[in-house]
Amino acid sequence: MARVVVDVMLKPEILDPQGQAVQRALPRLGFEGIADVRQGKRFELDVAEPVTDEALARIRELAETFLANTVIEHYTVRVEEAEGAEGAGAGAAA
Amino acid sequence: MARVVVDVMLKPEILDPQGQAVQRALPRLGFEGIADVRQGKRFELDVAEPVTDEALARIRELAETFLANTVIEHYTVRVEEAEGAEGAGAGAAA
Repeated sequence: MARVVVDVMLKPEILDPQGQAVQRALPRLGFEGIADVRQGKRFELDVAEPVTDEALARIRELAETFLANTVIEHYTVRVEEAEGAEGAGAGAAA
Repeated sequence: MARVVVDVMLKPEILDPQGQAVQRALPRLGFEGIADVRQGKRFELDVAEPVTDEALARIRELAETFLANTVIEHYTVRVEEAEGAEGAGAGAAA
């Protein structure tokens, strides 16, 4: 069982009120020195079959069409704990 | 400017309705072979100072007390793009 991680973050030019709320709360809570915070989503996909290039391409398509709104978000797809599959399949897009 | 990433995921024993909703929608959308999906949060923290062990310990405390609800969530703290700081500061907890 391989795990593929899809990270979905708002594009840098898009305002991130959640991240801003966290960042502004930090000094109040005693944490200084954090210049910026962005909050996004992390999807962990457990893939039954070995993660071939073809499977990874399908997952990238899935991320593009379903997990991320590519108008305002960018995503990263990478293989983690790929037992019995080829190693690093990192890739980014949009 | 170094970037520290905090990943917050529901613990494996906690039901994840968001992830389930995604997983169940996949066959309908033509994506087969995904056994499980978990959805969590990803925080990207831009740290002004170099990420020393002490700074990383503070960020871990921040994740523990503020970003994650450690009753139901676990978190991972790791340094990404640590320019001018020591290399990998990966660590997990809770």
